[in-house]
Amino acid sequence: MAHKHGHGRERIQFANAEDKQEFSKYPTKAGRRSLSRSISQSSTDSYSSAASYTDSSDDETSPRDKAQVNSHGSTDFCVKNIKQAEFGRREIEIAEQDMSALISLRKRAQGEKPLAGAKIVGCTHITAQTAVLIETLVALGAQCRWTACNIYSTQNEVAAALAETGVPVFAWKGESEDDFWWCIDRCVNNDGWQANMILDDGGDLTHWVYKKYPSVFKKVRGIVEESVTGVHRLYQLSKAGKLCVPAMNVNDSVTKQKFDNLYCCRESILDGLKRTTDIMFGGKQVVVCGYGEVGKGCCTALKALGAIVCITEIDPICALQACMDGFRVVKLSEVIRQMDVVITCTGNKNVVSREHLDRMKNGCIVCNMGHSNTEIDVASLRSPELTWERVRSQVDHIIWPDGKRVIVLAEGRLLNLSCSTVPTFVLSITATTQALALIELYNAPEGRYKQDVYLLPKKMDEYVASLHLPNFDAHLTELSDEQAKYMGLNKNGPFKPNYYRY
Amino acid sequence: MAHKHGHGRERIQFANAEDKQEFSKYPTKAGRRSLSRSISQSSTDSYSSAASYTDSSDDETSPRDKAQVNSHGSTDFCVKNIKQAEFGRREIEIAEQDMSALISLRKRAQGEKPLAGAKIVGCTHITAQTAVLIETLVALGAQCRWTACNIYSTQNEVAAALAETGVPVFAWKGESEDDFWWCIDRCVNNDGWQANMILDDGGDLTHWVYKKYPSVFKKVRGIVEESVTGVHRLYQLSKAGKLCVPAMNVNDSVTKQKFDNLYCCRESILDGLKRTTDIMFGGKQVVVCGYGEVGKGCCTALKALGAIVCITEIDPICALQACMDGFRVVKLSEVIRQMDVVITCTGNKNVVSREHLDRMKNGCIVCNMGHSNTEIDVASLRSPELTWERVRSQVDHIIWPDGKRVIVLAEGRLLNLSCSTVPTFVLSITATTQALALIELYNAPEGRYKQDVYLLPKKMDEYVASLHLPNFDAHLTELSDEQAKYMGLNKNGPFKPNYYRY
Amino acid sequence: MAHKHGHGRERIQFANAEDKQEFSKYPTKAGRRSLSRSISQSSTDSYSSAASYTDSSDDETSPRDKAQVNSHGSTDFCVKNIKQAEFGRREIEIAEQDMSALISLRKRAQGEKPLAGAKIVGCTHITAQTAVLIETLVALGAQCRWTACNIYSTQNEVAAALAETGVPVFAWKGESEDDFWWCIDRCVNNDGWQANMILDDGGDLTHWVYKKYPSVFKKVRGIVEESVTGVHRLYQLSKAGKLCVPAMNVNDSVTKQKFDNLYCCRESILDGLKRTTDIMFGGKQVVVCGYGEVGKGCCTALKALGAIVCITEIDPICALQACMDGFRVVKLSEVIRQMDVVITCTGNKNVVSREHLDRMKNGCIVCNMGHSNTEIDVASLRSPELTWERVRSQVDHIIWPDGKRVIVLAEGRLLNLSCSTVPTFVLSITATTQALALIELYNAPEGRYKQDVYLLPKKMDEYVASLHLPNFDAHLTELSDEQAKYMGLNKNGPFKPNYYRY
Amino acid sequence: MAHKHGHGRERIQFANAEDKQEFSKYPTKAGRRSLSRSISQSSTDSYSSAASYTDSSDDETSPRDKAQVNSHGSTDFCVKNIKQAEFGRREIEIAEQDMSALISLRKRAQGEKPLAGAKIVGCTHITAQTAVLIETLVALGAQCRWTACNIYSTQNEVAAALAETGVPVFAWKGESEDDFWWCIDRCVNNDGWQANMILDDGGDLTHWVYKKYPSVFKKVRGIVEESVTGVHRLYQLSKAGKLCVPAMNVNDSVTKQKFDNLYCCRESILDGLKRTTDIMFGGKQVVVCGYGEVGKGCCTALKALGAIVCITEIDPICALQACMDGFRVVKLSEVIRQMDVVITCTGNKNVVSREHLDRMKNGCIVCNMGHSNTEIDVASLRSPELTWERVRSQVDHIIWPDGKRVIVLAEGRLLNLSCSTVPTFVLSITATTQALALIELYNAPEGRYKQDVYLLPKKMDEYVASLHLPNFDAHLTELSDEQAKYMGLNKNGPFKPNYYRY
Repeated sequence: MAHKHGHGRERIQFANAEDKQEFSKYPTKAGRRSLSRSISQSSTDSYSSAASYTDSSDDETSPRDKAQVNSHGSTDFCVKNIKQAEFGRREIEIAEQDMSALISLRKRAQGEKPLAGAKIVGCTHITAQTAVLIETLVALGAQCRWTACNIYSTQNEVAAALAETGVPVFAWKGESEDDFWWCIDRCVNNDGWQANMILDDGGDLTHWVYKKYPSVFKKVRGIVEESVTGVHRLYQLSKAGKLCVPAMNVNDSVTKQKFDNLYCCRESILDGLKRTTDIMFGGKQVVVCGYGEVGKGCCTALKALGAIVCITEIDPICALQACMDGFRVVKLSEVIRQMDVVITCTGNKNVVSREHLDRMKNGCIVCNMGHSNTEIDVASLRSPELTWERVRSQVDHIIWPDGKRVIVLAEGRLLNLSCSTVPTFVLSITATTQALALIELYNAPEGRYKQDVYLLPKKMDEYVASLHLPNFDAHLTELSDEQAKYMGLNKNGPFKPNYYRY
Repeated sequence: MAHKHGHGRERIQFANAEDKQEFSKYPTKAGRRSLSRSISQSSTDSYSSAASYTDSSDDETSPRDKAQVNSHGSTDFCVKNIKQAEFGRREIEIAEQDMSALISLRKRAQGEKPLAGAKIVGCTHITAQTAVLIETLVALGAQCRWTACNIYSTQNEVAAALAETGVPVFAWKGESEDDFWWCIDRCVNNDGWQANMILDDGGDLTHWVYKKYPSVFKKVRGIVEESVTGVHRLYQLSKAGKLCVPAMNVNDSVTKQKFDNLYCCRESILDGLKRTTDIMFGGKQVVVCGYGEVGKGCCTALKALGAIVCITEIDPICALQACMDGFRVVKLSEVIRQMDVVITCTGNKNVVSREHLDRMKNGCIVCNMGHSNTEIDVASLRSPELTWERVRSQVDHIIWPDGKRVIVLAEGRLLNLSCSTVPTFVLSITATTQALALIELYNAPEGRYKQDVYLLPKKMDEYVASLHLPNFDAHLTELSDEQAKYMGLNKNGPFKPNYYRY
Repeated sequence: MAHKHGHGRERIQFANAEDKQEFSKYPTKAGRRSLSRSISQSSTDSYSSAASYTDSSDDETSPRDKAQVNSHGSTDFCVKNIKQAEFGRREIEIAEQDMSALISLRKRAQGEKPLAGAKIVGCTHITAQTAVLIETLVALGAQCRWTACNIYSTQNEVAAALAETGVPVFAWKGESEDDFWWCIDRCVNNDGWQANMILDDGGDLTHWVYKKYPSVFKKVRGIVEESVTGVHRLYQLSKAGKLCVPAMNVNDSVTKQKFDNLYCCRESILDGLKRTTDIMFGGKQVVVCGYGEVGKGCCTALKALGAIVCITEIDPICALQACMDGFRVVKLSEVIRQMDVVITCTGNKNVVSREHLDRMKNGCIVCNMGHSNTEIDVASLRSPELTWERVRSQVDHIIWPDGKRVIVLAEGRLLNLSCSTVPTFVLSITATTQALALIELYNAPEGRYKQDVYLLPKKMDEYVASLHLPNFDAHLTELSDEQAKYMGLNKNGPFKPNYYRY
Repeated sequence: MAHKHGHGRERIQFANAEDKQEFSKYPTKAGRRSLSRSISQSSTDSYSSAASYTDSSDDETSPRDKAQVNSHGSTDFCVKNIKQAEFGRREIEIAEQDMSALISLRKRAQGEKPLAGAKIVGCTHITAQTAVLIETLVALGAQCRWTACNIYSTQNEVAAALAETGVPVFAWKGESEDDFWWCIDRCVNNDGWQANMILDDGGDLTHWVYKKYPSVFKKVRGIVEESVTGVHRLYQLSKAGKLCVPAMNVNDSVTKQKFDNLYCCRESILDGLKRTTDIMFGGKQVVVCGYGEVGKGCCTALKALGAIVCITEIDPICALQACMDGFRVVKLSEVIRQMDVVITCTGNKNVVSREHLDRMKNGCIVCNMGHSNTEIDVASLRSPELTWERVRSQVDHIIWPDGKRVIVLAEGRLLNLSCSTVPTFVLSITATTQALALIELYNAPEGRYKQDVYLLPKKMDEYVASLHLPNFDAHLTELSDEQAKYMGLNKNGPFKPNYYRY
């Protein structure tokens, strides 16, 4: 579930496993950590029952030191508390209700078992939604071993539920860095079972295999990677000629991108602002920096609720779109004094500078919806003349000597990850994309994919979309033979050229 | 802050103070109780620091049994813990930032002290926003004694802050019914101080004075009442010829109504649904029952975020408006099977019946934004064949024998009070309206108001609005003499006839 | 069909019939004349076939000098050319398609003939839509005689079609003032037939009867009047104690007002601007003066199409609404330099002054959607240093000495009447309201209505709305007995108190 | 100005110049013809003064037979009437007001004359907007000779104005097919002047040069082509290895596409429907077939004005977008009975079949906004049992035996070209794109472009956009050096990768 927002454009050196003590310096890990923290927090914020089970656990023994056995007698797993399995099952069942695309995939592929023989090692956030993915892979014939891509993001009861059904899971909430690599190792290094597919989120699993078990790649048919960071690492490997199996970049599929950015942000900007500040949107003057997909989503939602929105842009094409969509295009410095809310969505750094912050009016809210925590120069606010006051979780008042307060949300980290939740439906898009990428790579005839990084074929992208249409009771029209011929299309797609802009 | 939503259209018998044991039978009180509970809960949901101070108090001694003194040596108050005053002060200061209309009123009326000599006894929710109101009244020259209109809604640290500055406050969170009337009595019955103005919210204070201290009315210049229930009681008194002072109904002022209903619900429907269910709005099929101001607000917001909305109506004029605004007008039974979300905003009862609930699809969300908790027949779901599962605070899954789940929010009580927050700006409108009504009644020349219930004069309604325009940096145009003459208007308003529909 | 826009707030002296030569001085008549002209023009603009028949008529003989007879042998009518009846019939049939409310009224009331015995004399615009109204009245049992309220607005072929079916019509396009009163007289003054109901639009018919045949009022059960001007005259009569029959003001019914203002202007502002200037709305900076119903309609539409809209207001309540709806509230002089389009909707005078016009940028478009032609000080532009260039019908370029051009539409008259069309559906609302008002007044028991001016009873207003719901396939919900009792409502309405704001 | 809508996806054989008599069979030409007819008509519809000058010309002599000389003594042109030059000049001046991007380009490139030495032969619609383009090319140093790409689309007075200033123009409204090729020939075949650049719209000029003067290509540095058809022809030539110079496809630039499709259709769907039918949009049930850019534009506008819109799609990704944007996705046959309006935007054929037409309700409006006139099976309505009634220009009522009427607009041809106008601003985008493409090809260093078809470089696409930002007073933000480095971008762009979806 690693959203691209979680990582950003930082130019990252490939993490060296030996440098565990340096670990926290890497922006990637920092990024992912803040993701995980925010996941759990936002779960709490939204009454998630799951969180409470996790939190109520007062057992301080490390899972690595416990002997646990599931009801089938297996001990091939390591979770916080196998007894939470029943609670976890309920969470999974609730998630299934909004992930009917995967359930549908299970049914459609039930007979043929397209993943029969697949041995998948996975490293992702371990949530109820991931569990639905894993159990789908199993239903399609795969054997899976799983670990967490983040030391904080595991829902313990879900891990327990998976372990109970026989999936070897090695993960718990609050792992140490040492635990983290130990878990990965236990997933990969298992007597008599060798992975032939990798599903990764962030590239740490891939990295570990490269470092420790390079021979595994002889059998591996492919890697599926969904994070910006992980994809970046793969492209670097490919460029360096070191990528020895095909890899699929599922981060950039059309469907996933639209949901992660435009549609998801359209809702989460409202949610994030409301939960942190209880602001009334009507009549508020808002400047949104950046009119890409994220910015477009934010602007649409805020305008719809009565805010008066203007934007800043560096790209004249996006700026012209903003004009036509009814937003004034301004320089930040021109309007900063009047703004009630400032939102960054640029992927750039220091878009909101200390100088801008100095000129904001009393009560101005500043937050970031972009790629990284660099967009707002929060560091510049850590200066002696300013007072920080934490008024709520994720909400700081920065107080100027004259009493002016500026309200900074999530310390400039991603608002939608820190202060709002991600709807299961969005996660369903991602999980389905991952499942289809695994099926494609596993079943592709020899030679279709070389030792390179590929985008999901458009036809499969379309298939992901089609699996989600029943959620909306949407009825697709089929081309007649005559029409297909007229259009020069196959009746089953793909329906658009690769460069189509949607 | 008693929103009209808190009470509803129940035909209420005037509460008999002797019947304390029957108290909870009255829908009004039930209504207000659920309001208070929800206020504290939603505060928690939104990270309010206030709640934590309150909650962390493990002192179980009743405030009535404690001896407390403020730093000025006064003991004329009864709050949970006077030591929380400093924390409460901060909450008040934060509220002041969004209530600049009252601050502005303080400044404008500073010289003349229009409430000099006024002795106001008040009974309202005691929150940071109310504190800003009370301190404004004091700044305008009034003496105030205050109590809570609800046994749960007091923010203890705010009460402490008020008591610390010398306002006699009698209120704490979690009063018993006996405490409730004791506090009211302590406010009214005070040696050497007799109220000449009443500010009430729900009518209990007014009721108590009628029952116990009718002679007080000899000096009282007027009652200001802001709740639907309280206003209803006043009209009944007036009808019965028992109203012995002028009363002002501030519930029905244009400005307050628009903000309580249209504008506030436009935001709170999204907030309430998101915080409880994390639903994605895009593409969801929603039916909104009732296209009054509340329904219009809900429909606007949901449509703007990509939901597909249809409505039900009994009134053909509102139905025609819905058509012109782009909503299909349907009967609930026609569409109930397809809906993802069902929202009631009718003020009526049994709008969503058990039969409708039986026909909903799996995962359907049902909630109420209307006036009372009768709109959804939740009682009918308390039957043996159905299983209730509380999955989060305010969220129940009702499970049918075939496994179908229907998600009921806040047990059919008001979603926006139970599961979202009310922006301070909306409360500012209400508080300013109350302050102006007090000033008007207190200063009105003899004979302007008789022993009847009055609406706020339109000119003052306009003045409330004008005090809030600076928040938006809005610049009003002034009529020239020539234009005023042409229009037949006074340059200072009122600008519209009374029947104007806005 | 006299829309209120056609007249405005001018303080009008009651027209003196003797002063025919002064006729054109009266703003009412001027108002109505420009209405009629625009009707025919806009018909042309929108390809109306009707116009062509009218225009192609090269017969210059006055209808008063022609002997015409219809196919039933009647000569009791005076139209341009009875032979155009067939063409007119087709126009009527096309109009019927969008006026199903009247057709439905015909059916519902077929058995009982609620207008049996009614003798209605009518004076309105004579268009296909009016014909549908007249033929409905006849179907309900009435006898009708009809004349035109405007010398230009008659569709000759429609008048012919009516005459052919036996309705005595006296009207043609291009009457002289003398013709105008002659026609009215022929309608009223008819041997053996005396009117007992009057349907008027503008008050000229009523005036004529008062002056010439006051005894007619002995039999008249009521007057139905739909124009602002006519209603104003009636209120003056009433005030002066001279109104001798009940009169119904149908101009101010809720349904009619919403359609004439909010809904109709929402569409006509776009249509009017597009047909005259081919402007692209996206990104245009627009200021709308006045945020009443007309202004709200304009703002909604322009914002929806990507314009950046700000408003000016004198009323703080409307200004606050504008803020909450997402529009900046400004003074005209603050923004005038930047605007691409300036639209007036105030009902006031000199809202756009010469000083504003002088400061507009090159290419700025100025137009009026308000009540009268006084809002823009067009007269101030008739000065020697400015050049007027008529570039299209209804479009003038005013050229400043430095070459700057300001584009004035319809010379400051009402844009929506001059340069766009009124959908038949809006006219259907008006005509149905008129029909119901006639039925109500004709059938009211003695004493229900006195010699005063009345608004349409809310229940009938609701009935008008309900008759139009089938056009939208809208299904109204009915209250159960239990619900009606709970709400204290009659199941058949009225559903709202009189002061309800919709 | 050949919009892509004008042509469609027909698989076209390259037109054989010898087959003049077969000319009208080619869908391309048919498409363009209908374009031209509609241009003039829509001009009339919108009060264009230009049209009247053209129409009032009662001179029936062929321009080829007239001896005309401009005021500089030149006879190297052939237009309808050189005396209309002054009128044409005014039209050009008005167009210049909305084409400030080209004016700005003139100024910026004034010193360097980037087209010095260029000899451009052009074949486009000859309108005021094209004249602004041509005069810009001249201002940049080019010599131009011009002809019309369509026999109907020439504005005679504009052609005269160009001829008067010395541009050899060969074009008039109402050319015969023979005239058409004669004019092209006169442009190309000129003693002592040989073109080195070609600007084409539709490919006829290019075709003629290939057939008649292939040696010209020795000097030609490139072809700029803007129509779908012309581009298709170029790709065919390229594929066949016959393209002997570089060609630039300006049809597919991002900026032009967005304006031609999304933004332009958002406005023209409303305009086209209103001008033809005076329909009220509020509450209308509309189905839009196809949710590409054109469909998105139509849906946005109609929904914004209160229509209830559903869509049909074959592509699941677009269908999912429609869901998220709040539109029901249906099959046409499921909803056809209820619809008030049916709009096609698919590029496909027989999307609306006779069977659908048979099931429409009385009064249903059918129109086409897509690529070609094949989307609605209008031919199937030419059957004996149905009656066609032309009620207005471009509006036919098709009457079924039972009296049902279906309203077909523009006989199924493109509504926006037939019944609405194209704002000058959209044409400015296109013209600027053409100018920049000419500059780029003319100045490109040897080897940058081969004998192939190219898209406009993204940087120039961005430049087109930036030239139009001043129209909106939009202020672009510039990257700091540090930011540019962080993003890995050049400060002057391009700012996005080629695959960016906007």
